[in-house]
Amino acid sequence: MKSPLSSDFIIGFLGAGQLARMSALQAFRFGMQVAVFSDRTENEPVQFMTPHSVSGSFDDVDSMLEFAKMCDVITLENEFIDSEILKELRDKSGTPIYPSPESFTLIENKLIEKQTFEAAGIPVTPYLLIRNQNDLKTFGEKYGWPFILKSSKGGYDGYGNKTVHNPEDAMSAFVTLGGEAGHDILAEAFVDFTHELAVQVARNETGYMVYPCCETVQKNHICVAVKSPAPVSAHVREKAQELALMATEAIDGKGIFAFEFFLTTGGSLLLNESAPRPHNSGHYTIEACITSQFENHVRAVCGLPLGSSDMIKPAAAMINLLGTHNRPAVTEHAHTAISQTDGHLHSYGKITSKKGRKMAHYTLLGDDLEATYSRALQLTDGIEI
Amino acid sequence: MKSPLSSDFIIGFLGAGQLARMSALQAFRFGMQVAVFSDRTENEPVQFMTPHSVSGSFDDVDSMLEFAKMCDVITLENEFIDSEILKELRDKSGTPIYPSPESFTLIENKLIEKQTFEAAGIPVTPYLLIRNQNDLKTFGEKYGWPFILKSSKGGYDGYGNKTVHNPEDAMSAFVTLGGEAGHDILAEAFVDFTHELAVQVARNETGYMVYPCCETVQKNHICVAVKSPAPVSAHVREKAQELALMATEAIDGKGIFAFEFFLTTGGSLLLNESAPRPHNSGHYTIEACITSQFENHVRAVCGLPLGSSDMIKPAAAMINLLGTHNRPAVTEHAHTAISQTDGHLHSYGKITSKKGRKMAHYTLLGDDLEATYSRALQLTDGIEI
Repeated sequence: MKSPLSSDFIIGFLGAGQLARMSALQAFRFGMQVAVFSDRTENEPVQFMTPHSVSGSFDDVDSMLEFAKMCDVITLENEFIDSEILKELRDKSGTPIYPSPESFTLIENKLIEKQTFEAAGIPVTPYLLIRNQNDLKTFGEKYGWPFILKSSKGGYDGYGNKTVHNPEDAMSAFVTLGGEAGHDILAEAFVDFTHELAVQVARNETGYMVYPCCETVQKNHICVAVKSPAPVSAHVREKAQELALMATEAIDGKGIFAFEFFLTTGGSLLLNESAPRPHNSGHYTIEACITSQFENHVRAVCGLPLGSSDMIKPAAAMINLLGTHNRPAVTEHAHTAISQTDGHLHSYGKITSKKGRKMAHYTLLGDDLEATYSRALQLTDGIEI
Repeated sequence: MKSPLSSDFIIGFLGAGQLARMSALQAFRFGMQVAVFSDRTENEPVQFMTPHSVSGSFDDVDSMLEFAKMCDVITLENEFIDSEILKELRDKSGTPIYPSPESFTLIENKLIEKQTFEAAGIPVTPYLLIRNQNDLKTFGEKYGWPFILKSSKGGYDGYGNKTVHNPEDAMSAFVTLGGEAGHDILAEAFVDFTHELAVQVARNETGYMVYPCCETVQKNHICVAVKSPAPVSAHVREKAQELALMATEAIDGKGIFAFEFFLTTGGSLLLNESAPRPHNSGHYTIEACITSQFENHVRAVCGLPLGSSDMIKPAAAMINLLGTHNRPAVTEHAHTAISQTDGHLHSYGKITSKKGRKMAHYTLLGDDLEATYSRALQLTDGIEI
C-alpha cells in the first residue's frame, strides 16, 4: 500500500453519513484525499466534503468497482454490506478493505456475532435462534417474559427489534420481522441491568488503544446521551475494557470498534452489541480524548501508529441532538450551548431534518460527571433542529 | 444573513491553501458547506475538500462573481486582494465579506497599516516611506545601518524584504523592490529584540477572544516554530495581548487576526506585522486551546458566539515541517512523532513538495515549555517531506 502520508493517498468510505463525515475530517488532517460511495446521488454529509463522489448500489460489486479502484484503502461506516460482496470488491479492485471482510464474516449477523464472542470467552446475553413457535415458547419459559426478538441482520437503533410479552405476541413479531420468510430471528433474554456501558477499541498491526468505559443513556432503544467515564466502579470499567479488547482480538479487528455491555443488577457484564466502525457512544472522544475515535479509525485502517485514548478532562457528557421538526435543517437556540467554555457543537450537514433523526451532537467537558451531564442536558434542552 | 447553522449555509474561501483548509475543517464541524475560489484550477488543498470549487483571477471581480453569489459569507486566507475589488465583489454579489473590505483598507499596505496602528496608540517599529536616495541616507543616519527595506504590498515570509547595509546597497534594493517603478517602499529600523511574539484575536459582534501570547522562532524570515505561552514575563504577555486587542479594534476587525511583536532588548513591545486571517503562529491552538484559531475564524465571520481561547495544557510547541525535497509530497519518518501522546501531525494535502515549502506542522503539548519544545524538535528532526 502507498504511504498514507502521501498527498495523493485516497481513503474511501462506503457510506456517506455522519460517521464517515467525522472520520473524513480526520483524514484531511493527515493530508489525505477522501472518496465516498453512497447509494444516494446527493446531499449526503460526506458528499459535501469531496469532489470524489460515486453513487450506486451496495449490493452490486460492479457499481462499486470504479470507486474501489480509485481508493488506496476502503473503510465502512456501517455493517450492512454482505461480507462476500466486500471480499469480491477487494479481490476485483485490489484495494484493501478494513475492517477486513474476514472480520465482518465473524460478526455478520447477530447469531454468528454471539457465537464468535461466546467462543472467545466473552459473556453475552442469553439467546436462541428461533425456528418455530415452539422455540419461542421454550425460550420464554426458560428466561421469562418479556424477551426481545431481533432480526439477525440489519437492525440498529431499535429498528428490527421487538419486545414480546407472550407466545402470541412473539409469533406475530416473528412473522413481522420476516421469520417465516426465512430471515434468521434471534430471541434474546431481557436482562435486568443497572447501566448500559460502551467501550471503543482501535487496533491495527501497530498495536491497540482502548477508550474509557462510558455509559450510554438510551430512550426507546436510541442512544440519547453518553457519560464518560461511566459512573460505575473502576473495577467494572476495567473489566469492560478488557472484554472489549478480547472481542476486538476475537475478530482480528483492524479499525475502530465499539462494544456495548449490560451491567446486570447482579454486577456482571454481558456483551450486548458490537459495531465494527465509529460509534455514537464514542462521539464524546472528539474533544474529551487526546485522539478521537475518528482519528484512530483513520490511523487504524491506514496502518498508522495509534494515538492516545486518554481523556484530557475528568468528565464528558455527550447529548445527541435529534431532529425536532420535519423541515430543512437549521439548528436553533444553540448559541448559549456554543458559548460555553468546553461546550462543543457538531452538526452533520444533513439537508433535511426529521423528528428523531440524528442531526448533531453536543459535548460538554467538565470536572464532575453528574454536574457536567446535568448542565449539558440543560444547555441542549431548548435546541430545535 | 441565513443562519450559519443551517445545512445549506455555504462559507466561501478566497484562497485554497492550508489556512483555508484548516478553517474549512471547522466549518464542516458546524454542518456548513464549503466553497472555494482559487487562481489555480486543481490540486489546491481546499479543492480536495469540496465539490464547490471555482477558479479564476483574484484581480477580476467578474471571475469571482458566480462564486460569491453561491456563498452566504465569504472570508479570505490572505491579504493580497485589493480592498476596492473586495468592495465591488460584495456590492455586486450582495454576499458579506469578513474581515470587511473596510478593515482591509486600514491595513492594505505596510504604510497605511503602520499609520492605522500608530494612530490607535500602538507602538510600531520606526519606519519611513522612501521616495528617493536621500530618504535612504537620512533614515540610515537616524536609525543606523543596517535597516530593512520592504515593499509596501504583497510581501510575506521574507519575500519582498531586503536587509540593506549602506546607501549603495539600499539604493540597489530600492530599485529591485520596484521603488523606481512606483511601488511604495518602506524603510524599517532594525530592532534589537530578545523575542518575537505573536497574539491572535478573534472578534465579532458577539465579543472577542484573545489567545495566549506565544513566541515565534524565525529562520531566514520564515517562522519555523512556535512556543506557547511565550517564555517572557506575564506582564509582557498581557501587554502584548492588550495591544493586539487594541489593534483589532482599530480596524473594527470581524474575523481572526494575528499580530507579531518585537520584544526589544529594552523591554518594550513594538508591533511588527498584522495578518487579518488565521496565522502560522496560531496553528498550535488546534490542540492546545479549547477553541482553535480556525474554529474561531469560522465562528467570527459567521456571527456565531466565540469559543474559549484558553489553553488545555501548560505548554505547547509547534514545529513547521517544510519541504525537504522537490518531489511528490510524502511525509516520511514521522511515525515516532505521530505515536507520541499529545503529539499531533497536520499535513496540508499539497500534492508537490518543494524545499522550504510549508507542507505540514507538528504540535506537541506538555507541562514544561522548554522540555516540550526540545522534544518536538527532536521528534521532527528526521522527518522528510
